[in-house]
Order: sequence, then structure tokens, then C-alpha cells
Amino acid sequence: MFIIGELINGMYKSVSGAISNRDKSLIQKCALDQIAAGAHALDVNCGPGSRRPIEDIQWLVKSIREVTDTAIVIDSSKPEVIEAGLQVVTGKVIINSTTADPEKLALFLPLAKKYNAGLIGLALNAKGVPQNKDQRLELAAAVVSACVDAGFPADQLYLDPIVMPVNVGQSQMSDILESIKEFKIISEPSPWTVIGLSNVSQGARFRSLINRTFLTMAVFAGLDAVILDPLDKELMDSLITAELIVNKQIYCDSYLQAYRKS
Amino acid sequence: MFIIGELINGMYKSVSGAISNRDKSLIQKCALDQIAAGAHALDVNCGPGSRRPIEDIQWLVKSIREVTDTAIVIDSSKPEVIEAGLQVVTGKVIINSTTADPEKLALFLPLAKKYNAGLIGLALNAKGVPQNKDQRLELAAAVVSACVDAGFPADQLYLDPIVMPVNVGQSQMSDILESIKEFKIISEPSPWTVIGLSNVSQGARFRSLINRTFLTMAVFAGLDAVILDPLDKELMDSLITAELIVNKQIYCDSYLQAYRKS
Repeated sequence: MFIIGELINGMYKSVSGAISNRDKSLIQKCALDQIAAGAHALDVNCGPGSRRPIEDIQWLVKSIREVTDTAIVIDSSKPEVIEAGLQVVTGKVIINSTTADPEKLALFLPLAKKYNAGLIGLALNAKGVPQNKDQRLELAAAVVSACVDAGFPADQLYLDPIVMPVNVGQSQMSDILESIKEFKIISEPSPWTVIGLSNVSQGARFRSLINRTFLTMAVFAGLDAVILDPLDKELMDSLITAELIVNKQIYCDSYLQAYRKS
Repeated sequence: MFIIGELINGMYKSVSGAISNRDKSLIQKCALDQIAAGAHALDVNCGPGSRRPIEDIQWLVKSIREVTDTAIVIDSSKPEVIEAGLQVVTGKVIINSTTADPEKLALFLPLAKKYNAGLIGLALNAKGVPQNKDQRLELAAAVVSACVDAGFPADQLYLDPIVMPVNVGQSQMSDILESIKEFKIISEPSPWTVIGLSNVSQGARFRSLINRTFLTMAVFAGLDAVILDPLDKELMDSLITAELIVNKQIYCDSYLQAYRKS
């Protein structure tokens, strides 16, 4: 599983404070803590409250790069903010995200190619959130088709079926999980699949329990990458165990420790 | 999910002691505790060390029936012990278990019909444990076919794919989970599916974590019934949450408590 740490996000008060005060050490610690806990990449989002998002994203990216060359996932709904991040990043980078709307794809695909970046493609368009598996598949296929037309390689594309909160879209949870499987057979070679895990428990009690239960099922469905809180130890234990069961981690009695040391 | 409590089993020292000493109160408390924790049925096994298994199983069944009419699952590898249990049980009863061997089916199907009992059919025969999904399916189909021939109804049959310990059969875990799905389409109406959960973590560390992770995947695969320790609260929380995600429990903020009160 390719683990993307979600914690460098201005929606968290401590992070938005650090951004405002240009407190590099807090951001760098947040980066290193997530990596130590198992993150293979770091999502970076200056948050909804940022007044200077272009400066902020560039400062975040540069601050992180001072301490690690771990992959960075530049996360914004604003294309100009994403490009600002791409301009200063070095090493592996992923864009989070494009929708399936043709105008968004026409914007982000050239950008991803120009900067040699991966791209997260959401099964979502201007009409809103898909309501079933077929709609998700149709939207994902539109993203894949645009990638093929643009000569953008499948191994740089991460398809996201859009995870809804269980307290809103309970009847869609199985469809979302099944979509993970079906996205893999849209093209050959397969695109990667990714989810933003925390959405599933948005507004719910027992958030960590819901998160890890959904993630366990997603692992069984074949999920490749996940955006989550790697500091949630129980969640990470569940993830490692789920991968053990589907034979993606080798069993040993101390497999939890062995994974963390590897 | 139809939950079968596994704790009344002579392989546990306290239970074998209670059987030897005819200590009814310990067995009755074990029955009521499991029911209070969510069990819909109670597995009853006098254990490998029993010297008088026929007397023991009858004493166990009668002791339990003094305090509850919850379904009883009579568990023994010896047909004469199972029949002894059937002779004294009242109310709902399930036989645990027959293999797919013709001589076993020829023995247990008439017994199940005579006593109006459910029957757990293992995807297993004298050749040993199946090594892949196809072998499991073939063995399950042999059980179903014998049931059809004997006029034994599908809604009284529980097919068990045989869960192996993850530290022995790690490469087979996905096959076992997929078998659960496939068993449902062997016949119309579908047989039920069941697993003995604890096997998955036999001999492993982190037993509860492995158990609940495997069970979560099995719920997603469509499992109908499970033999487990209902006093493992984290396991039960995982089970309830897994059923929430696949839309078999209705969401409310206090869904864990709501389930337990229902």
C-alpha cells in the first residue's frame, strides 16, 4: 500500500497557525513524524483559510524539502496553487486532484506531463458526487480516456472512487468498494486506485474504528494507495494486518514490528 | 450475521473442569454471558479430553437448556456424540459438522432430517484440507449435491470453506474469502456460509487483531454466520462496524450501543 500522510493540511488549527507564523519546525516535524509512522508520501494543503495560497504552498513545499525527499502530493482545488507548488518541488510529486470534467482534464494533464507528476483523478464532475457504481465507472473511464488521448501513462494515474461519509451515503459503501476492483480493469496496464479514507467517518462517532474497518475492506478489494493519518496506530496496525491476510506482507510472529522496521 | 459463541468447549481448562465436576453454574454463566454479548447460538463441544463424551454432551445440553432456549450447535467429530446431543436437545439445533465425504454425508443428512437440525458442511474430505478456491468449490458442491439428493433444504445448510491459520496458509487467505462469495451461488436458494474464525489466528501473536481483520473482510465477502468469541469486545465492535459499512446495520451516531440493545 502506498501511504499518503494527510496531516499537513491548513484545515488543522496547528498547521494553519504554523503557516501563518512561518513556523517551519512544526511542519517539518509533522512531515518526519508521518514518515516515521509509515507514510510513503505527504499530502500538502494550505487549507481553506489561506489568504496567500500561492506563497503558502511554496513555503510548505520548500520547508518539507529541507528535511526529506519523500514524495509530495500537492493538494488544492485551485489550479494556480497546484502549479505554484509544482514550480518549487523537487523529486517525486503527485497532483491532488483533477475531476473528470473535460476542462479540468485539459488543464491538469498538460501540467502533470510538464512537471513529470502523478495525477489523482476523481470519479466526480460538475454534476456532483456519483450515486452508484456505474456512474463511478463512467467517470473513471472518462479520466482514463483523456489520459490515453494525452499520452499520459497509466502508472502515473491514481483513480479515486470518492468515498462518502457512512452517515450520509451508507447504501453506497459497497459500491465504492466494488469500484476499486473495477477501476483496475478499465485499462491495461491498470491505473492505480486511491481513496481519501477519513471522509468515510466524517461527522461520525467512532471515527478511527470506522476508518480502519473501511480500509480493511478496501485492502481486500485491491486498493493501491490511501490518504490517511499514519499517526493513528490502530489504523496502521489494521492496515498491516489486512495486507498480511491478502498476502502482501510476509507473516512472522512479530509482523507488526517487522513492517515498521522495514 | 448469525453469531455462534465458541466458548463452551472442553478444550478450555475451565470448561473441561466444569464438565468433570458437573459444575452447572459455570456452563450456564458462560452461555448467558455469550448471549448477552450478542451470540445467537452456542457451540457446545465436550473437548478432546472427555472420557465420557456421550454423557458429557447430554449434560452440557441439558444444563444450557435450563437457562436459555438459544440455538445450540452440537460440535463433535464423533457421530455418536452428535446423536447423543440431538436426543436431548429441544428447540433450534445445528450439527457441527459433516465433511464432504459421501459416507459422512450418508450418516449426517438422515440424522439432521430426523432431528430437524441445521447442518454445517465442511469443504473438506478424507484427502485433507483443500489447497485452493476450486477445490473448496468442488467440495462444497459435493455437499450441496448430496443435500439436494437427500431432500435436505438449502436454508438448513451452512457451508464452511475451512479457514486456515494465516501463519500456515497465508497464500490461501484470499481464496478462502472468495470462496464465501462463490458458495452463495452454488444453488438457488443459496446455502448459508459459516466460518470458524479463531482458526485464522491459531498459533499467531496479535490473535484478536488478526481475527477482526479477517472477519471484516469476510463480512464484505458476504459471510452469513460465524463461530467466534463474543466476549471479545473489539472483535464485536469490528463486526458491527463492518455490517454498518455493508449496510446491514442502520447508521446512527451510537450504532455500537444501539446494536447491543437491539
